[in-house]
Amino acid sequence: MLICDGMADRPVPKLANRTPLEIAKKPNMDWLAKRGICGLMDTIAPGVTPGSDTAHLALLGYDPFETYTGRGPFEAAGANVELQAGDVAFRANYATVDGAFIVKDRRAGRIHGTEELSAAIEKIKLRGAQLVFRSTISHRAVLVLHGKGLSHEVTDSDPHEVGRKVLGVRPLLHPPERPGLAFPTIAGGIRRYVVRRRRASKTVRLLNDFSRRAHDILKNHPLNQERIQKGLPPANYILLRGGGIVPQLKTLYERFKIRGACVAAAALVKGVCKLAGMSVIDVPGATGSVDTDLNAKAKAALRALETHEFVILHVKGFDEASHDGNVGAKIQLIERVDTMLNKFIDATDLIAVAVDHTTPVSVRRHTGDPVPILIFGPGVRTDEVKTYGERSAAGGGMGRILGKNLMPIIADLMGKTEMFGA
Amino acid sequence: MLICDGMADRPVPKLANRTPLEIAKKPNMDWLAKRGICGLMDTIAPGVTPGSDTAHLALLGYDPFETYTGRGPFEAAGANVELQAGDVAFRANYATVDGAFIVKDRRAGRIHGTEELSAAIEKIKLRGAQLVFRSTISHRAVLVLHGKGLSHEVTDSDPHEVGRKVLGVRPLLHPPERPGLAFPTIAGGIRRYVVRRRRASKTVRLLNDFSRRAHDILKNHPLNQERIQKGLPPANYILLRGGGIVPQLKTLYERFKIRGACVAAAALVKGVCKLAGMSVIDVPGATGSVDTDLNAKAKAALRALETHEFVILHVKGFDEASHDGNVGAKIQLIERVDTMLNKFIDATDLIAVAVDHTTPVSVRRHTGDPVPILIFGPGVRTDEVKTYGERSAAGGGMGRILGKNLMPIIADLMGKTEMFGA
Repeated sequence: MLICDGMADRPVPKLANRTPLEIAKKPNMDWLAKRGICGLMDTIAPGVTPGSDTAHLALLGYDPFETYTGRGPFEAAGANVELQAGDVAFRANYATVDGAFIVKDRRAGRIHGTEELSAAIEKIKLRGAQLVFRSTISHRAVLVLHGKGLSHEVTDSDPHEVGRKVLGVRPLLHPPERPGLAFPTIAGGIRRYVVRRRRASKTVRLLNDFSRRAHDILKNHPLNQERIQKGLPPANYILLRGGGIVPQLKTLYERFKIRGACVAAAALVKGVCKLAGMSVIDVPGATGSVDTDLNAKAKAALRALETHEFVILHVKGFDEASHDGNVGAKIQLIERVDTMLNKFIDATDLIAVAVDHTTPVSVRRHTGDPVPILIFGPGVRTDEVKTYGERSAAGGGMGRILGKNLMPIIADLMGKTEMFGA
Repeated sequence: MLICDGMADRPVPKLANRTPLEIAKKPNMDWLAKRGICGLMDTIAPGVTPGSDTAHLALLGYDPFETYTGRGPFEAAGANVELQAGDVAFRANYATVDGAFIVKDRRAGRIHGTEELSAAIEKIKLRGAQLVFRSTISHRAVLVLHGKGLSHEVTDSDPHEVGRKVLGVRPLLHPPERPGLAFPTIAGGIRRYVVRRRRASKTVRLLNDFSRRAHDILKNHPLNQERIQKGLPPANYILLRGGGIVPQLKTLYERFKIRGACVAAAALVKGVCKLAGMSVIDVPGATGSVDTDLNAKAKAALRALETHEFVILHVKGFDEASHDGNVGAKIQLIERVDTMLNKFIDATDLIAVAVDHTTPVSVRRHTGDPVPILIFGPGVRTDEVKTYGERSAAGGGMGRILGKNLMPIIADLMGKTEMFGA
């Protein structure tokens, strides 16, 4: 399954109202479309704009509404932190604050090489939870709390703006839902609410304690003293955001007896695949940008196909080109990926081409438009679609499906599904 | 509504990549398709392989995920056992065991005429539940427990293999869901879990008691002594499997004020229709195979239409031909059923042709591919589809619907639905 991140688009006026995918020369995708089946897919639900994390949860067959509470767990999984269901994970930034805790730089001068700082922070002992703190890329890191009765229902400590004071973490709870709606008993509703509040309060105490003690360690750390002497902003505070609870996901193998592997550069995509129990293959030269080494990724994916029944090859650069409004770069990457796709036509029986979400070059961010999908292989009921594109796929034989349907459909074509009923 | 069990297929290489339905001469289905509306239907959900029971629950408008826990109740209803919501029903086999309870023959030499044995077994009195035990076809029977606080969450006593010891029934329960997912509080989860465990334990006690006492009755029964003398394997043990709880189903009449009847040979289909409150019409000569007496079934259905507003005519043989990989027999049956269909064109206003699931002759078992559906009659919004087939229907005016949507759509065309809202 080739996943082209953000490749789908809207008609572009300066391209005579065609989309980059419609205008690009992509003989291999069109060859597959002509001999396969196409359709439209709402990755989450019609009109709902997917994030990268929720989109890939859905593409792997999970209901994002049931499994997603925040980005933290997927970021942490992508950073190779071992996670257990019920852990709470946060995205973290090394930041610079002054003596009054006013944020001077949310990225501490885009600091690099924070591993030593993170190792110092990880020594913090909290009462009631263990913690993992790991540097990822540049000023970024992840915090994972492991313990009983934790909650993701807490606010960010990150004020998301320079010049504002860091925020104390607080419980993020609403009064219980009105009885008679989703939760039919008052008793259950109130009990659930009390438990949620208790868990949120515990998590808040842990996080505020963590923040204070991390600051104490950082402000006196030799590495920061050095930075100050050099005139660089010290990394003296950890801003937390995107808290989420690690969901209990049945792996791809548990659901379909499918051994899967994933070739991707984006840490978030790797994280989702890892939580789905897939092998995650690191490829030197895979950057997640338009300059990524497609050749190296294709080779890694072909090699993975020798030992895995199902391989995801994820290409991120479309999304970046769209965020930059760079339609030329987007078309070029489509053509390069199409050329690469040729290597797979003889290498595997079943090929799916999917897009995780639309990122129009005119809008420069994700939108909720449905995306085109394509499946080619033995047993597939072909249709009249001749080219792979947003509008041509709308007339395809798959009709319009949801993102979470795609994996069961593929598993069924692989002969991997079990009967529901008898 | 004509239900063609397992008629849908995948493109068959040796038929020039056409399906049996695409290649068969079926002027009546095509006539209806041209003048009606077609579409694709995921009987359960996209990519999910339906069983016969779950598929027919969905075709009658029930959500199988909400109403299905196991095959037993539908088998029992098909055997004319009166059922109440909350009863627990099992499929049962008369089997042969030796003195060490090792299974020698799971079908007791495919014994026939077990009614006398079943009558003896039905006299067993259990503490805490009443029981019904009824022979069905050949070595098969059903066991129904009626009482308070019963559970289907128990294991089979059937080891499903010759040469293994019969199994003691045990509770089939997993620990409560980990906090943080769908059920965020341990409190609710544990209470539910405790109740489930208690019910499962009670049911386990009843079933193991039943198994022991049934064995005592059977091993000494004159009919078995006679079999032993004749060198036949005695039917001296009852193997239980497929336990399910009888769901609380609103009947077709309660939901739509529709008086329905069903003409079918398959006991499971009859059972689902009976639980939906439909009249079930037995037709001599209806076998559930390709040799079924279609003429007799059509006559019975036409007669039923005089007294019922809605009649299901179910033909099972397609599925059998597909399980045997017999594409010729499948095509022939399609053509015979098409000829039969002609009788209905003048006899009723509204005709639906449906398939419960795909059974590709190449795969020889059910798969999760969507099936083609067709509705013909006054008020139907026609489309451009000219023939009835898996691929042609994909371009139809109904788009892609779920199995549970079909019955409300038919009821609506019959003018039988009530407004939701005001």
